[in-house]
Amino acid sequence: MIADLDPSREPRVSFKVIEGGVTAAHGYRAGAISCGIKNPDVKRLDLMLIVSDTPTVTDAVFTTNKVRAACVRVSQQHIRDGDIRAIIANSGNANACTGPQGIQDAKAMCKATAEALGIRMRQVQVCSTGIIGMTMPIQRITPRVGELAAALSETGSEDASRAIMTSDTKPKSYAIEVPCGEGSFRIGGIAKGAGMICPNMATMLCFITTDAKIAQDELKRAVRCAVDQSFNCITIDGDTSTNDTVIVMSNGQADAPEIKKGSEEAQTFRRALHKVMLELAKMIVSDGERVTKFVEIRVRNARTQADAKKAAEAVAKSMLVKCSWHGSDPNWGRVIHAVGYSGARLREELIDIYFGGLIACKGGLTTNTPMTELEKVVKEPRFSVTIDLNQGSANHTVYTSDLSEEYVDFNASEYSAAVHARRQKGLA
Amino acid sequence: MIADLDPSREPRVSFKVIEGGVTAAHGYRAGAISCGIKNPDVKRLDLMLIVSDTPTVTDAVFTTNKVRAACVRVSQQHIRDGDIRAIIANSGNANACTGPQGIQDAKAMCKATAEALGIRMRQVQVCSTGIIGMTMPIQRITPRVGELAAALSETGSEDASRAIMTSDTKPKSYAIEVPCGEGSFRIGGIAKGAGMICPNMATMLCFITTDAKIAQDELKRAVRCAVDQSFNCITIDGDTSTNDTVIVMSNGQADAPEIKKGSEEAQTFRRALHKVMLELAKMIVSDGERVTKFVEIRVRNARTQADAKKAAEAVAKSMLVKCSWHGSDPNWGRVIHAVGYSGARLREELIDIYFGGLIACKGGLTTNTPMTELEKVVKEPRFSVTIDLNQGSANHTVYTSDLSEEYVDFNASEYSAAVHARRQKGLA
Repeated sequence: MIADLDPSREPRVSFKVIEGGVTAAHGYRAGAISCGIKNPDVKRLDLMLIVSDTPTVTDAVFTTNKVRAACVRVSQQHIRDGDIRAIIANSGNANACTGPQGIQDAKAMCKATAEALGIRMRQVQVCSTGIIGMTMPIQRITPRVGELAAALSETGSEDASRAIMTSDTKPKSYAIEVPCGEGSFRIGGIAKGAGMICPNMATMLCFITTDAKIAQDELKRAVRCAVDQSFNCITIDGDTSTNDTVIVMSNGQADAPEIKKGSEEAQTFRRALHKVMLELAKMIVSDGERVTKFVEIRVRNARTQADAKKAAEAVAKSMLVKCSWHGSDPNWGRVIHAVGYSGARLREELIDIYFGGLIACKGGLTTNTPMTELEKVVKEPRFSVTIDLNQGSANHTVYTSDLSEEYVDFNASEYSAAVHARRQKGLA
Repeated sequence: MIADLDPSREPRVSFKVIEGGVTAAHGYRAGAISCGIKNPDVKRLDLMLIVSDTPTVTDAVFTTNKVRAACVRVSQQHIRDGDIRAIIANSGNANACTGPQGIQDAKAMCKATAEALGIRMRQVQVCSTGIIGMTMPIQRITPRVGELAAALSETGSEDASRAIMTSDTKPKSYAIEVPCGEGSFRIGGIAKGAGMICPNMATMLCFITTDAKIAQDELKRAVRCAVDQSFNCITIDGDTSTNDTVIVMSNGQADAPEIKKGSEEAQTFRRALHKVMLELAKMIVSDGERVTKFVEIRVRNARTQADAKKAAEAVAKSMLVKCSWHGSDPNWGRVIHAVGYSGARLREELIDIYFGGLIACKGGLTTNTPMTELEKVVKEPRFSVTIDLNQGSANHTVYTSDLSEEYVDFNASEYSAAVHARRQKGLA
């Protein structure tokens, strides 16, 4: 089962790509409005709502960061009761490191949503993304939730996907229809990334809806498996931000048979969910802050899966390696260096390194492949680096990016800028 | 004992700073010549030699990287026999990932040194730093070792320190004289750093000489202890390059009494060695590639030493935190975020964060300290960030730097540039 979900291979499942993102599956509506959360003078969508009109089975994966945003704490409480009907999310403020006031604000967002939709407050999940350590401008949010509910529609996914963007340059959305039994089911989602695709990245949010009919425990297994093979292949080391959240709602409205544990349908569902998450994860990497290269790091033939993962992540995290990619420099020396300190078991004299299909290092030594040919590969906006340890049969793939001067510049003054802007406006 | 060497405090030992680096202690000579190792057309010191004219007790700490340079392998073999008399080191080529030819070249450097000095080959340590994966231009090195031996002098330390520089902008040297018993001993050293001060940094080399009289096992304990509290506080995570090496030679020529295990003198020696390594380590951070800020990260009151270390290193490694320092942005949100994913046990609501002496975050929440005051601290070229976890009594300090656009630019094309340069010259 795990082998089938090896991220080094695309999940094998028949599907059709469809439009509609988080409203592609039957029975969901979404919408967004502009509240001026970050800056009251700037009109941009920054508050979104996703609703299931019928009961759901919902599972979520939250940040493992010990500093958890107020919204994460509230959502974790709410999901215990099950039958989640709505997700409300804002950009412009992370509601993290905001103390008891933050908890109160997150609850106020749930309460307003529940009132607008005629559901219970504990049926609402709440997410926030943006700057850390500043109180939510809740007076600009809760009074608008009725209007937000009125904006819900079966074509509202794109608005919703835009409302969670922070430094993302484009909305991220993906949906598929999957034949299953005599019928089919749909899975679709929206996501936001930004920040360097790296341990200390900014918030990652992903909301997925499906009309498949599935029991709680089977959904949970599928979600853990898919997250592990998608978002955890980009958010290296399992380090997550204060706000990272993946929520998957299923409402059973599809005509496909129920997804039962151990069945062929369960296999299909897992692969389909993996596919959707993998596509969204790749979009996040491609759209990382000031990223100019998308790089697939494939470690092959490690002794164990853990070794393969360590090696791939060490390369993906290395600032020196990322700089060399940015400069289109096929620097295999830095790659082998990172593999060497990764903790993976290896023998230097067995290591082969490829840029694209070209071998740059054979048995730990340089090859005769012309530098100009290797440079051609690394000059491309998308390429792969394959590290063959020739030690065993375990593989692991990580998706990552280069490191640009623009990234440094972009991240050099977020805080002062935000605080000064707020002070100038006389805001708290 | 360990508590006494807490890196959060300077080692408590009486000493006088003296000139002379690696030739400050009695009985050592050093020298350097220019061999054009990286580029035959460029005249710069790139081959150095340090010699003790009398028998030594020597200890060394080598990289833990599983990809080890040929010179490291050879030095590791040689040190087993004891009585090291000479260290030969070059810049311009790392002799890493060079296979059997690399081993042969490293041995040839030892052999030439032994012949020039009339000692055994196994009494020579050999070190290299520079680009990885290219064969050593050994024909430009070994024939010159006689000339190098002729250049040895009791004032040759500065030349030696210059010859191991790569992207370092200045030589690094430090020496002290320490009263001990009725007499005194001297300890001095030279070092080279460069690369980002970070897990995946470039090679760090440090050569230390002392005239203290000390037994092998006591020297070994002192070296491990001092490295752990100095270089391991800058080379985060214990990740080291393919070539990292610290060598400490002692020749017993001082008039101080013998350093005996458990004695007061042993305590004094350990602290003195720690002091020398700490000063050299700080010089390495300050002179990191394109570094504009030197930052001391102090974690206070963690539950355990391991927790304190995890928290400090997570902050020091965070690209987002480093970018904010570069922009003089007192972004405590990013700091607490990194502490949160560090794995250290903590309670968010107990965390206080200071920039310099100013509190930016109290109990996990923002404070009223004016942003303009915090900015003043972060604008300085040297400042401290203190993270008080208020959980226990363990402290740890890490020395690190910012991340600049210039760093990215500087590291973007080393490889292609070097290869093209070599090809143009018709070199291998």
